[in-house]
Amino acid sequence: MTPVRSGRPTGDRLPTEPPRLVIDRVEPVVDGGRYPAKRLVGDAVTVRAIVYKDGHDLIAARVRYRGPGERRWRLAATTYERDFDRCTGSFVVDRIGTWRFSVEAWTDRFGTWRADLAKRVAARQEIEENLSEGATMLRAAGRRARGDGRTSLMELAALLDDTDAPVADRAERAVTADVVALVLAHLPPEDLTSLGTDFEVVVDRERAGFGAWYEMFPRSQGAKADRHGTWADAAQQLPRLAALGFDVVYLPPIHPVGRTNRKGRNNALVAGPADPGSPWAIGNSQGGHTAVEPALGTLAEFEAFVVAARDHGMEVALDYALQCSPDHPWVREHPDWFFIRADGSIKYAENPPKQCADIVPLHFWCDDWQALWRACREIVAFWVERGVRIFRVDNPHTKPFAFWEWLLGSLRREHPDLIFLAEAFTRPARMRGLAKLGFTQSYTYFTWRNTSWELRDYLTELTQTSMAEYFRPNFFANTPDILHEYLQHGGRPAFRARLVLATTLSPVYGIYSGFELCERTPVRAGSEEYRDSEKYQLRTRRWDAPGNINADIATMNRIRREHPALQRFANLEFLASENDGILAYHKHAPDNDLLIAVNLDAHRPQATMLHVPVAALGLDEDEPFRVEDLLTGSQYVWRGARNYVRL
Amino acid sequence: MTPVRSGRPTGDRLPTEPPRLVIDRVEPVVDGGRYPAKRLVGDAVTVRAIVYKDGHDLIAARVRYRGPGERRWRLAATTYERDFDRCTGSFVVDRIGTWRFSVEAWTDRFGTWRADLAKRVAARQEIEENLSEGATMLRAAGRRARGDGRTSLMELAALLDDTDAPVADRAERAVTADVVALVLAHLPPEDLTSLGTDFEVVVDRERAGFGAWYEMFPRSQGAKADRHGTWADAAQQLPRLAALGFDVVYLPPIHPVGRTNRKGRNNALVAGPADPGSPWAIGNSQGGHTAVEPALGTLAEFEAFVVAARDHGMEVALDYALQCSPDHPWVREHPDWFFIRADGSIKYAENPPKQCADIVPLHFWCDDWQALWRACREIVAFWVERGVRIFRVDNPHTKPFAFWEWLLGSLRREHPDLIFLAEAFTRPARMRGLAKLGFTQSYTYFTWRNTSWELRDYLTELTQTSMAEYFRPNFFANTPDILHEYLQHGGRPAFRARLVLATTLSPVYGIYSGFELCERTPVRAGSEEYRDSEKYQLRTRRWDAPGNINADIATMNRIRREHPALQRFANLEFLASENDGILAYHKHAPDNDLLIAVNLDAHRPQATMLHVPVAALGLDEDEPFRVEDLLTGSQYVWRGARNYVRL
Repeated sequence: MTPVRSGRPTGDRLPTEPPRLVIDRVEPVVDGGRYPAKRLVGDAVTVRAIVYKDGHDLIAARVRYRGPGERRWRLAATTYERDFDRCTGSFVVDRIGTWRFSVEAWTDRFGTWRADLAKRVAARQEIEENLSEGATMLRAAGRRARGDGRTSLMELAALLDDTDAPVADRAERAVTADVVALVLAHLPPEDLTSLGTDFEVVVDRERAGFGAWYEMFPRSQGAKADRHGTWADAAQQLPRLAALGFDVVYLPPIHPVGRTNRKGRNNALVAGPADPGSPWAIGNSQGGHTAVEPALGTLAEFEAFVVAARDHGMEVALDYALQCSPDHPWVREHPDWFFIRADGSIKYAENPPKQCADIVPLHFWCDDWQALWRACREIVAFWVERGVRIFRVDNPHTKPFAFWEWLLGSLRREHPDLIFLAEAFTRPARMRGLAKLGFTQSYTYFTWRNTSWELRDYLTELTQTSMAEYFRPNFFANTPDILHEYLQHGGRPAFRARLVLATTLSPVYGIYSGFELCERTPVRAGSEEYRDSEKYQLRTRRWDAPGNINADIATMNRIRREHPALQRFANLEFLASENDGILAYHKHAPDNDLLIAVNLDAHRPQATMLHVPVAALGLDEDEPFRVEDLLTGSQYVWRGARNYVRL
Repeated sequence: MTPVRSGRPTGDRLPTEPPRLVIDRVEPVVDGGRYPAKRLVGDAVTVRAIVYKDGHDLIAARVRYRGPGERRWRLAATTYERDFDRCTGSFVVDRIGTWRFSVEAWTDRFGTWRADLAKRVAARQEIEENLSEGATMLRAAGRRARGDGRTSLMELAALLDDTDAPVADRAERAVTADVVALVLAHLPPEDLTSLGTDFEVVVDRERAGFGAWYEMFPRSQGAKADRHGTWADAAQQLPRLAALGFDVVYLPPIHPVGRTNRKGRNNALVAGPADPGSPWAIGNSQGGHTAVEPALGTLAEFEAFVVAARDHGMEVALDYALQCSPDHPWVREHPDWFFIRADGSIKYAENPPKQCADIVPLHFWCDDWQALWRACREIVAFWVERGVRIFRVDNPHTKPFAFWEWLLGSLRREHPDLIFLAEAFTRPARMRGLAKLGFTQSYTYFTWRNTSWELRDYLTELTQTSMAEYFRPNFFANTPDILHEYLQHGGRPAFRARLVLATTLSPVYGIYSGFELCERTPVRAGSEEYRDSEKYQLRTRRWDAPGNINADIATMNRIRREHPALQRFANLEFLASENDGILAYHKHAPDNDLLIAVNLDAHRPQATMLHVPVAALGLDEDEPFRVEDLLTGSQYVWRGARNYVRL
């Protein structure tokens, strides 16, 4: 049977194949299907649709779905909630790549018949006619069944038609579980209605949705201050990072750094002779986006670093920053890829009145845009060939959205294991837009959300709206650009609180070097920039300096790995706390319920009565239950909904 | 310039014309554009879209729209809220029929240039290059301008390029209001991006969204009990109904009533010889859906009744009930249009265990469905030719949704002034579905919403969700099928409260004969059916019987006509009331603010402190203001937000 496509009739002519049922409001769908929903490999995708038709018939529906590269549709059954006219089914996405699904529905003729028969029997009405209709359906199913199934359906049909046999017996025999199963399996739908569209689900590997990131400048890892670090130096950090429990080591740009208008320490407009410059001023005579800064070492040494990280169970993420220093080879080879002034010179980056003379932006709509876009794609392909699978994309909101949609779509079709993190700190609509059109993860406003209501508000938006379908937050607690005043003024307790928030509110989070040492000196009061920022100079550190929070980091990363509830994002429920200084929430996974309470006040202890969701946990109102403090291992017995917490 | 269509690139090839901007989340749109939004003639349609692009440019957008039958698109400007990346524009729909609209956006190059220039001037930066860019834009605009405009743009361009002239003077001259207006008018967009889809708005006449309905059985209007009323009798009621302030007189089916299995008084399975039967058992040997019951009179007399109603400022609404009595001519002429039993007989209507032997349902998916569907359309066309423009559709949820979508679409293309009221009391998804696919108005659950929280909940759903775009409620306070226990037990105060609720909560409302007399005797305790229901017998009434609420009805209908705030639906805001027995709300229109308080307790007076939305009314917290009781004409001075009300 060919499914009938639903669609609106046009003109006054009769529709050729009017849809028998209405299928509406399918989920998960982003913006009516314009963008795919996102899932992780192994997830069950729960599909819901409103399905209805006229009259009082029962309805059946199924989900059609297929994995990446599959030609044949697979089918998943649904359950039907009549009061809501809603069908729900699910399928497991067991491979990465783009899956497709749709919904088909039809009249559950046999179910409707059974329900009507039961009502008539209860009302002691005449059912001879119903039994005869049932016999017709059993025969239709029987003709498509084989072997014993066929035989028993045909025999039962004959019994239903046998007016000499006792009516009650025939009615009972027709609705046994065996018969129902046989009929469901073989009775063809008469009015199969298809939605006419299908929807995409992009399925990523586990690391796209769960991982601890560490941002490190390899050039700062030299054994002595002011000696430019090498790949070998950087590799020395790998055992430490692995022991702390990190999964991803993210490196700012590793390419040759421009010399023209190079910036000096603390963003000085003129660099000293030994200043290494900002690594985001990419390219000089030694190469561009596919070269490695010679002071770090060779490409082969970089590849060895990637392998060493893998040996420690970690992945390397590279920075993908589509901008050039004025010394980048492209400036000479393709001056038309840049913005050219009337005098023939090339424009610097600017967002008036700010100017960055060490950087020239690319002109993504230049006449030769196709070649430029392809060249940008080649950069990624180059590093993919060298074993890199994760890219942190610098300022994607300053490049065309259509470019990203093409680039990410095209790359991920070839390499569905690629992960792209959007570093866009911009207005909400644009951050959402980048996530919709293909970024795997996104930086967020997390660093600027520090009070109880700010965090509740923001996390509610991220987890409870349609954003949960496509926007995967990466909660960096600090970055080279963002040292929030909460950390500046709050000291070590603030760093610990933010660590716990980042590690438990979001399955993907990150810290940037120095967070573990509670580094918190801004370049000046009121600024979020670090003093002596590593963006413009080398910085060596003693990783075991007093006051470090290494132990906390290792503990939190261990707890995250042990508790599935911390490995998914939208499974979050805020709990009532009677003190705004303490934020409390519940993370849930099967057999894994965590109650988390964080003292947001960096200056003094806070206490509250925490409202435990006893009903959700399957507890009685006054039942005692055991809780374990995962940080200390201590166990307590709590009772009922309100319990005391002091932090 | 051809607009670039936005769309997703496919394959690894570069997109041919990648969209420069993203246009997203357009409103008003129902289910992603699958169904039209609804508006009334004269309304301003406010269009919103999220529009963004990369970088820091300002954005401009316009709404493209066209009325029914228009070929050329018209354009409406929008305002741009940068923080929300949102553009908002509006157009007035001044004719009934289907309008279409879409959104186009482009970079506001001149605006961006002006903003950058101002920032540079403020930061005392070099602006010579900016002035030269400005000159280029002025020339581009000048080439498309004519006459003085062209001259002044060209002269100003020359000045901007004149490096000998003072910089500050040139910067100021470039951004005067005159220049900005000229440039906006003539500078062509370089990156015009169109959404690629357009959306429908169905525009109805005023009566579709504002009107008072009265349901009347013409056969009961005979001067004496048990004399079948005629059209002349029914016409006698018109002056009374006009004086009460009604706009629509809705008549249950007026066609010949079937004789086979005719129902008797109080739904008796066997009719007495004088019983007139249910008018919903349509058709006998004297005709079907296009005939008039001979006892009422002739078709010509019916047409005269329609004219008489019009002369009283009222319209006649007919019942469109697609079902037949077993005596309907179609049963003989087209037995294949019905459900046929194995023995060749035709099936009665049933919803097990209920059976209605006086009615046979139509088989909308019979082999000859096209002819049946066309015949159904012919019925409407027949009555349209006789002056009827409003149809109350009986149980539309028992006929295919695809049938309605075709029927209503096809009829309204020819007659956009038609109004169809869906009488579906069914599950929410199906009621919403009927409204989406074309019904002008819908019956609601209003009769079953009697407490404060029920009403707040239901009205919030109707006015604050997407339903407000397509679902127009008709708040019938009673029907021949629904006499709610609130009325049965509450007596006259309950009828008055429900009248005030219906008339003020919904611009479209109705009552069925007898409501004005507070008729409230159920057929039996616990039933919502009337005793001696007019569905099965004639009922004559004394319209001035003691205890009537005629004066209240006339008053409420007059107030509704005088106050625009009561003529629209979604302009509703509930007010805090400190007593659940009193429901309070605010209806707003320009220069027309009504505060409405209704005592829901039919048995005793209630008092409350009413919370007036002083801020919304433009009042200070403690400012005194004058309120007028529209029912009594009394005036009071209230002060601040909390004011005492006793009802």
